[in-house]
Amino acid sequence: MENKIYVVGMGPGDEQMMTAQAIHVLDESEVIIGYKVYIDLLGERFSDKELLSGVMKKEVERCELAFEKANEGKKVAIICSGDAGVYGMASLMLEIGQRYEDIDVEIIPGITAATSGAAVLGAPLNHDFCVISLSDLLTPWEKIEKRLVAAIEGDFAIAIYNPSSRKRHDYLKRACEIMLSHCDGNRACGIVENIGRNQTKSKTMTLDELKDTEVNMFTTVFIGNSETVIQDGKLITKRGYLSE
Amino acid sequence: MENKIYVVGMGPGDEQMMTAQAIHVLDESEVIIGYKVYIDLLGERFSDKELLSGVMKKEVERCELAFEKANEGKKVAIICSGDAGVYGMASLMLEIGQRYEDIDVEIIPGITAATSGAAVLGAPLNHDFCVISLSDLLTPWEKIEKRLVAAIEGDFAIAIYNPSSRKRHDYLKRACEIMLSHCDGNRACGIVENIGRNQTKSKTMTLDELKDTEVNMFTTVFIGNSETVIQDGKLITKRGYLSE
Repeated sequence: MENKIYVVGMGPGDEQMMTAQAIHVLDESEVIIGYKVYIDLLGERFSDKELLSGVMKKEVERCELAFEKANEGKKVAIICSGDAGVYGMASLMLEIGQRYEDIDVEIIPGITAATSGAAVLGAPLNHDFCVISLSDLLTPWEKIEKRLVAAIEGDFAIAIYNPSSRKRHDYLKRACEIMLSHCDGNRACGIVENIGRNQTKSKTMTLDELKDTEVNMFTTVFIGNSETVIQDGKLITKRGYLSE
Repeated sequence: MENKIYVVGMGPGDEQMMTAQAIHVLDESEVIIGYKVYIDLLGERFSDKELLSGVMKKEVERCELAFEKANEGKKVAIICSGDAGVYGMASLMLEIGQRYEDIDVEIIPGITAATSGAAVLGAPLNHDFCVISLSDLLTPWEKIEKRLVAAIEGDFAIAIYNPSSRKRHDYLKRACEIMLSHCDGNRACGIVENIGRNQTKSKTMTLDELKDTEVNMFTTVFIGNSETVIQDGKLITKRGYLSE
């Protein structure tokens, strides 16, 4: 009998923002693996499961642990915040899965911060958009710079993930400076902190102001395209219906 | 008392892929407005509501209808497939909402086809990515072309929405030709049809093959970045953990 591991996107954190499918898969699981902060967000409902968090930054080991547990015959789910396939564990699980012929990997999508954060700010991604991570742990900074420039040149709205961390406190400033050398400083922007969790905070501002704004690792940043506006405190990228 | 209209992303269609929050909001609504095909997907659960679909392509009228119903004191939800803020009605509702001071517009996010389709194919968007619509109803084709080129030049993975329609049957071919003039023909790609509905179909292929593939309006198309691979029939954009 084939065994299956589910890689589950849990959305921003609030159970209300998980899909019924994701909740069902976790309900059926015996082992749930994920970063401690996500395990903690799951709450009481899943406290009877074997909950394993492993060590931060040991992603490969954490994924291998999932396959080992599945090999023991356990029903296993690995959880990711947001969507499992957007900077989540989906690709790594599929890669490692090549070594385990009898174990199937199924991806359960979730709501990623680009769209949950956009909903808080208004509708900043309501036309073509890019998603870019500023983390250079696995990506050379030159490549990130190149993508920021391409995104501005293509006039995309942009959602920025991982805009800051302890070691990368000035990365958002650097990213803004690069974008500012290709677009105007009054470009409409916004930030959202702790989406779908307690104390969600959001703010709209210009790109000039964003450059000097401190954000943390729980912030998602939005850069409008050339037509994005701030109206009544909402960040809106129009689709064009009213200008037809 | 302030009245509120919810703009609800229903995900790909299956109720199992809606969030608890979206289902709750629809349960509480008296009037649900949306394209007929989405209203039909809602099914029995909401059949006691006042269900209004309006006329195709009359988006402004449909949104105004929502405000009229809310003005009558009704609890109103307007539904969009996928996410309300990704080619959905969020921005238009916020724009029209400027004229209705007493009515608040709240956006309820949903799972957009980029991530639900990615989950079917494997993990094609597991690094920086762009979302581009090929519909030129509201966007000049030149702008779409420019974005396709920028997306390839920035080495983004790409999710393409609205790749085809009756009037635009050759648009995907045209888009592929533009991308092929900036990248190799063996770029890993995939398509998914009817995500989260009956008869979901998916297929991986090269960009050369995609150019000559017929798709319909219920298809989402994925173009890998330069490092995306097809392994065991899955489309995988690696994050780089295993090459550290």
